[in-house]
Amino acid sequence: MFKVIKTQNSARRGVFNTPHGEIQTPVFMNVATQAAIKGALSAADLKQIGCQTVLSNTYHLHLRPGEQVIGSLGGLHKFMCWDGPILTDSGGFQVFSLSKLRNITDEGVEFSSHIDGRRIFMAPEDSIRIQSRLGSDIALAFDECVESPAEYEYVKKSCERTTRWLIRCNKEHKTILSEGGAVNPGQVLFGINQGGTFEDLRINHMKEIRELDLPGYAIGGLSVGESTEEMYRVLDAVVPHMPADKPRYLMGVGTPSNIIEAVKRGIDFFDCVLPARNARHGHMYTLKDGCINLNNEKYKYDEKPIDTNCDCPVCSRFSRAYIRHLFKAKEMLAMRLGVIHNLYFYNNLAAMIRAAIEQDKFDEFRGEYSGRIDLRA
Amino acid sequence: MFKVIKTQNSARRGVFNTPHGEIQTPVFMNVATQAAIKGALSAADLKQIGCQTVLSNTYHLHLRPGEQVIGSLGGLHKFMCWDGPILTDSGGFQVFSLSKLRNITDEGVEFSSHIDGRRIFMAPEDSIRIQSRLGSDIALAFDECVESPAEYEYVKKSCERTTRWLIRCNKEHKTILSEGGAVNPGQVLFGINQGGTFEDLRINHMKEIRELDLPGYAIGGLSVGESTEEMYRVLDAVVPHMPADKPRYLMGVGTPSNIIEAVKRGIDFFDCVLPARNARHGHMYTLKDGCINLNNEKYKYDEKPIDTNCDCPVCSRFSRAYIRHLFKAKEMLAMRLGVIHNLYFYNNLAAMIRAAIEQDKFDEFRGEYSGRIDLRA
Repeated sequence: MFKVIKTQNSARRGVFNTPHGEIQTPVFMNVATQAAIKGALSAADLKQIGCQTVLSNTYHLHLRPGEQVIGSLGGLHKFMCWDGPILTDSGGFQVFSLSKLRNITDEGVEFSSHIDGRRIFMAPEDSIRIQSRLGSDIALAFDECVESPAEYEYVKKSCERTTRWLIRCNKEHKTILSEGGAVNPGQVLFGINQGGTFEDLRINHMKEIRELDLPGYAIGGLSVGESTEEMYRVLDAVVPHMPADKPRYLMGVGTPSNIIEAVKRGIDFFDCVLPARNARHGHMYTLKDGCINLNNEKYKYDEKPIDTNCDCPVCSRFSRAYIRHLFKAKEMLAMRLGVIHNLYFYNNLAAMIRAAIEQDKFDEFRGEYSGRIDLRA
Repeated sequence: MFKVIKTQNSARRGVFNTPHGEIQTPVFMNVATQAAIKGALSAADLKQIGCQTVLSNTYHLHLRPGEQVIGSLGGLHKFMCWDGPILTDSGGFQVFSLSKLRNITDEGVEFSSHIDGRRIFMAPEDSIRIQSRLGSDIALAFDECVESPAEYEYVKKSCERTTRWLIRCNKEHKTILSEGGAVNPGQVLFGINQGGTFEDLRINHMKEIRELDLPGYAIGGLSVGESTEEMYRVLDAVVPHMPADKPRYLMGVGTPSNIIEAVKRGIDFFDCVLPARNARHGHMYTLKDGCINLNNEKYKYDEKPIDTNCDCPVCSRFSRAYIRHLFKAKEMLAMRLGVIHNLYFYNNLAAMIRAAIEQDKFDEFRGEYSGRIDLRA
């Protein structure tokens, strides 16, 4: 299912097979939380910007429109007209970050919908059932995501619960597949490692969950308030304890430099809302000039594309001056063009990383770009 | 420049030549007020939905980004990457509908910017100079648009001023072209007929302005509060006094039925914000079922496209259930897909009208569709 085809030190160039095609890794997954990409992009647009894999969210889609709607329409692929691989996050993170008045027990989590406040109970089994109705290619286990900083003892207990929940998720996932009639019979389950910024907890938890021999493992609970250095320290500690023959997914990370640094440490899968969010505020990535702010007066007459080194559908057509005007005039097209460029940039960054590893030039690539692209021009 | 290639009673099938290609008439022009189509559509998208001609606005582009920006970047075509015909409205209507504290004299209008309140003076010559910098293919004369209802005596005096302004616009337009170096040396000027709902004023004004032998004439100041019957009554009165060999443009109109009824009365050009505005609220046009509201609960599980008889890029892919979800989830993609469909619908309506006139079947077409498409299902 996963094959590492080339390594350079810890960096890996791999291929992951799904029922909807291969994923070439390292990969940046494009976030479609509510089955749509922010900035008015459709699945058809994603084909043009090098997107390999879409990430959608169990919590959001459960609340709206409900998995019964998506399931009855043939699953998420058909619903959003995306025929490539889809990964669904379990909703664990969103229950903790978006909903108030949550009540966590070993049984599951009771929380208030961020839309209308209604009380909802979600057990690990529920998350898996929902993801089965959605029909994603990769489902994620339901975990407890702990804020940072957190008390050692709380994180330890939370990790133990996340392990118990993972065992229940895995059991439920197998049960559903054995029942037959699933929207996506080839769906696989990834486990999630937790442990905050405590290296020993991270390592112990990883050792526990790898026993389940799942097709992939994610690292959750990072990029939630800790420093970049702490994040890299956790990766340095835990990644060597992840199975070498399974894909490794660093959830919700991050800046271009974060991605380059995590690839160096052996990570294969990424997702992040940052490129789309930055784009919606006029902050655009360029390879040579760092992150530029198109709201700046100096671009008012600028005929150049956002990035003169970019082959995206926006840079091949539109000027900085035009897109800046669209932002100033509050035209939705500003956000769309910005998101197209920034997502293309991230997808292309992953492609450049893959090429660099293939050619044994990843260290040079990292030396040239890490720590630079993120800087404001 | 304009050739009527077929008529059926008063309805005309024509071709208008511009420096950026032919316009097949009757035509529905797609509104890009601020050099962008509402709903995050770019010029590239317009190519896919049968758009022939874009309409942009002098008032808005003068305020933001300013004609000096667009002119220095090579004009509106290059700025927004649209290589087809562009018509620019003169700003007359917007000065009267958007800006407060306006002060009208024979010299011109002083008004407050609707963006930041700063005082701006615009004479007819200014509007023409701005449109020249924008480089549109068709410029419109600067007119006074009178609200409805209005006093007969005021409308009469206003018409006289609009005639004096038209003469100044025409003179300025010729001066600019004779100076050489215009962004678009092939730009032409259309005059605008006013007169409120008073048939005698409309006819007198039309007789006056046709003396200038301009390449086209618009009817302004309709669809501003009068009833549909009053509008048709005005058209019945004034259109016979418009030159038969020049295109006739009914500004800012209207519903599908308005367009069919106006074509019957001899109108060739149309523009309206209605299809895009309706789309942004979830109201979608269909040929057989009238205007449907996708917010309606009954579409929650509906796998059908918006219009089963539609070949637009949205209907060939996405379900009502998906687009309804996008509206409920407040995803920008909802508006984009809606606008693509509704603009395609209007562009296709004009294409169907052209085909009907060519085949001497316009009366049957009118009998089948007029008064029906606009109705809410």
